[in-house]
Amino acid sequence: MPQPRHIFYISDRTGLTAENIGEALLNQFGNLEFKRYTYPFINTVEKAKEVIAKVNANAEANGERPIAFVSVVDDEIRNMIKTANAYQINFFETFLGALEKELNAEATLAAQGHHSIGNTQRYDARMEAVNFSLNHDDGVSDKNLQEADVILMGVSRSGKTPTCLYLALQYGIRAANYPLIPDDLESSDLPRMVKPYKDKLFGLTIQPERLQAIRQERRPNSTYAQLNTCRSEVADAQAMFKRHGIPYTNTTDKSVEELAVYILQACQLKRRF
Amino acid sequence: MPQPRHIFYISDRTGLTAENIGEALLNQFGNLEFKRYTYPFINTVEKAKEVIAKVNANAEANGERPIAFVSVVDDEIRNMIKTANAYQINFFETFLGALEKELNAEATLAAQGHHSIGNTQRYDARMEAVNFSLNHDDGVSDKNLQEADVILMGVSRSGKTPTCLYLALQYGIRAANYPLIPDDLESSDLPRMVKPYKDKLFGLTIQPERLQAIRQERRPNSTYAQLNTCRSEVADAQAMFKRHGIPYTNTTDKSVEELAVYILQACQLKRRF
Repeated sequence: MPQPRHIFYISDRTGLTAENIGEALLNQFGNLEFKRYTYPFINTVEKAKEVIAKVNANAEANGERPIAFVSVVDDEIRNMIKTANAYQINFFETFLGALEKELNAEATLAAQGHHSIGNTQRYDARMEAVNFSLNHDDGVSDKNLQEADVILMGVSRSGKTPTCLYLALQYGIRAANYPLIPDDLESSDLPRMVKPYKDKLFGLTIQPERLQAIRQERRPNSTYAQLNTCRSEVADAQAMFKRHGIPYTNTTDKSVEELAVYILQACQLKRRF
Repeated sequence: MPQPRHIFYISDRTGLTAENIGEALLNQFGNLEFKRYTYPFINTVEKAKEVIAKVNANAEANGERPIAFVSVVDDEIRNMIKTANAYQINFFETFLGALEKELNAEATLAAQGHHSIGNTQRYDARMEAVNFSLNHDDGVSDKNLQEADVILMGVSRSGKTPTCLYLALQYGIRAANYPLIPDDLESSDLPRMVKPYKDKLFGLTIQPERLQAIRQERRPNSTYAQLNTCRSEVADAQAMFKRHGIPYTNTTDKSVEELAVYILQACQLKRRF
């Protein structure tokens, strides 16, 4: 078994961008093992020196230079990091020069401040969407449901809540959700609470075996967690979606991100930031 | 006023990576305007043809080629996209070859499937963390509070809930939160519910003027939203953090992402995926 290759994510901000693209690239090497270190907020000469020392010590200890994904906006810090003993993939440096040429404009090359009105608006939109989603989680209230951008519908544990919260946090979407309980599933009509908002409905379905595993974790050996229960609930829910022409998707093999983007596109939702 | 430059995000998956790095780069051109289009899930020849037609039509209509940030893993689709009339920044192509050389391994070059055990585990950890955060939002329950990775503490509307949910969704962190109400703030002791978990506490503070604006939005012209109330609550909360040696940060100029990463680092929290 070969030693895992060591990966450094270095950023003068959160490091999320570096991690994002780094992970997308490393995912292409599915048979290799990696050990990861993230150093966010490397925005002073002092911190840069510390992280360089860590990278160099790591290279020495492993007898192999690590790989560093570097997303540093500040020129001085970035040039310092370059001296570290690592194979470096440098996002800003790679693309910024070319982009300046294409845009015929100079990059300001300053770490984004967060005092701008845009950021406050983004924060407010996010807060509002998160609050909306929390207030309309699990069908707890139909108050202001007409203000929802979308209403996710599905059986218990089909993935509604995380998807709603992700839509709220990532896109400022006001996503409500409504759990289809056995009473709803027995009826051929839409549940009373959501019926007036048919155009906002989106259905989630799930493989019964996966649903069973999730429910079993939550309430072991209950009727709720039995495979038969899961099968019939999922079948009834899917029949309801078809009967009323409600768009739906299967959550089984999708990540929360994929679900959110899929719903955004399928319902043509407008991002709020 | 110059016309905004048109930006295409094209991906055979969610497009989040392309958007992430694209936005980080475009942020460096703060004085320019951009108009954005995202095309996720471009994973078939048919869809690729459609998006190429859209890019070409856009270039023609604007008399200027758009900029395309392309994050397509599949070789065939990526080579098709290359023929579109856009200035293209191509993440995989730019870095993957070099990375293959450095890792001395071949990239599998296949869009990630989501059937792997790793993905299921990630999904489960996320679900669990989100459920935990929801069950411990706003100090509603001290049940299983010992299982929290961190407990955020702060006055009402200081940004606790979105930060907890982000920590849960992005890192699988079990983040509880406890709202400091006037009764808590009058005492020199820590609130009873969280006192046993002092080592897990992290404080959020906020500029009183910003807090007032947020509260005013929620409950206009209430005592709760008065600047004096905000000032004294924030001062009392900060005094409590100092008195008990609880680490804290000011949320005013930070995005939810920045707060989450900051807390992750300050509390040395271990990501669950």
